[in-house]
Amino acid sequence: MAAVEAVIEERMASATHSIPQTADYLVAAGGKRIRPLITVTAARMLGYEGAGHVSLAAAVEYIHSATLLHDDVVDESELRRGKAPANAVWGNAHSVLVGDFLFARSFMMMVDAGSMDALHVLSRAASVIAEGEVRQLAAVRNIDITRAEYMSIIDAKTAALFSAAAQVAPILHGSDKAVEDGLETYGRELGLAFQLVDDALDYGGMAAELGKNTGDDFREGKITLPVALALESADDTERAFWKRVISNGDQSDADFDEALAILTKHGALDATLEAARAHAANAVNALNVAPRNEWTEALAALPEFVVERAY
Amino acid sequence: MAAVEAVIEERMASATHSIPQTADYLVAAGGKRIRPLITVTAARMLGYEGAGHVSLAAAVEYIHSATLLHDDVVDESELRRGKAPANAVWGNAHSVLVGDFLFARSFMMMVDAGSMDALHVLSRAASVIAEGEVRQLAAVRNIDITRAEYMSIIDAKTAALFSAAAQVAPILHGSDKAVEDGLETYGRELGLAFQLVDDALDYGGMAAELGKNTGDDFREGKITLPVALALESADDTERAFWKRVISNGDQSDADFDEALAILTKHGALDATLEAARAHAANAVNALNVAPRNEWTEALAALPEFVVERAY
Repeated sequence: MAAVEAVIEERMASATHSIPQTADYLVAAGGKRIRPLITVTAARMLGYEGAGHVSLAAAVEYIHSATLLHDDVVDESELRRGKAPANAVWGNAHSVLVGDFLFARSFMMMVDAGSMDALHVLSRAASVIAEGEVRQLAAVRNIDITRAEYMSIIDAKTAALFSAAAQVAPILHGSDKAVEDGLETYGRELGLAFQLVDDALDYGGMAAELGKNTGDDFREGKITLPVALALESADDTERAFWKRVISNGDQSDADFDEALAILTKHGALDATLEAARAHAANAVNALNVAPRNEWTEALAALPEFVVERAY
Repeated sequence: MAAVEAVIEERMASATHSIPQTADYLVAAGGKRIRPLITVTAARMLGYEGAGHVSLAAAVEYIHSATLLHDDVVDESELRRGKAPANAVWGNAHSVLVGDFLFARSFMMMVDAGSMDALHVLSRAASVIAEGEVRQLAAVRNIDITRAEYMSIIDAKTAALFSAAAQVAPILHGSDKAVEDGLETYGRELGLAFQLVDDALDYGGMAAELGKNTGDDFREGKITLPVALALESADDTERAFWKRVISNGDQSDADFDEALAILTKHGALDATLEAARAHAANAVNALNVAPRNEWTEALAALPEFVVERAY
């Protein structure tokens, strides 16, 4: 991972003054690095001896950072519709372009790794992510989204990159198809678990105390699994509530507490985390086709770690 | 080019409803296809017998379309700062995501072509374009931008993709380095000529009658070569004028005519087109290292065609 960090830093360099600043804020200071960790750990587990996994791991993090920058533009649009301040708007233009820069650089790093098959998997993942984001955008404020539709959206929006991050390791190593498929499944299931935990955390997870980032989905009118589940069991009064706060975006300060109360009444946060645990278990099971060593143990521990975040 | 069109159409397909509509509007209905035409013609000129040039030509057009979509967001931000209507803002989010989709698909097409060297050239071009756009954004409303700084910005923003479009043909064909360098130069010089003609056309070119798209750069506060040249020769009154209309964005209906009069007084549109002609001639000269056949003639005719647009 130290080698990945070095590549991440090095490839942000640009003669264009403001790019390294913006990129640094996001890429260097930012993340938990869970996606590149999957690539590097899987490559080690398989006994891959080249250096390509470092470039691909860094490329995966760059794709993730690019989507975060572009998400800011997408989310801000929704949130601030009709009243964007000048600064936020100039920021939007910059976010779009620096995201494009990171995206382009990610492909340069993939070229460094030298595997056309890995390039195919990662470019397809990038395409699927964009499709997932468009579908999520179309689903905002729509209280008729079903659980199945929602799972399909996060499969594209979130799980595709986790899946690709895992799959490129056996591709680089030249593993059997069964191992490649197993790691693809591992990544996808871990990605689904990760997203569902995030969804629960946005409503405070299982902790009574709410963090300062809770409620973003609610305020932005995004339907996530907790709300989709609560809608499945909603009576007329509750449905009218969701329609007002989500579809119409008509929210007062007390509405988030009311939403939490309804979610709790239907056990929607419990059910979301139960679903996350099931996907995490699927991820661990998918490792059965892989060799057993200390790196396998590390990969098997990751889903548990992801789910534990919610408690 | 018919094969390129077929690939362009085919790769826009997506199960995500609104993507083909948006992409189609831009990619299928849109362009002059000058960039993919360079790739295809150069491959023919070199006697390349594979099919990779078709995928790369389509990929080049996708990159171009993705940057156009993202430019819309960037330009709109400037133009409508602080008063974005809801519809335009939702449009922004969609433009960002569909641009990302096209960008990702372009890399999938490059993988189809199977050349890692071509992938390197095109991914580097995409990175340089993003850097050029950021630099242009930073230069908006800045009347101290010099001619040299401006040429450096359009070298990145516009010429890099023309250059890459030409360079990938000899790479696919496996031509000598001298031929590859010659075509890279051809593309770059043609791209510079193309941009300078566009700059002149935004002030009506040499036609007295103004098209409905004239004045965009002026209204958006973008310094292009005509204005940079006029600023070099500006007296105090003129400098105060440019400062008011460009730097401060304080424009009335009569100001565009006033700008045109100042540009004409200094021969700035003539000088811009003279520079375009010089770059067009450089492009033709760069073909000296290439084989001579009917395709060479077609490539040599293209710069003239580009410059003629202005008259």
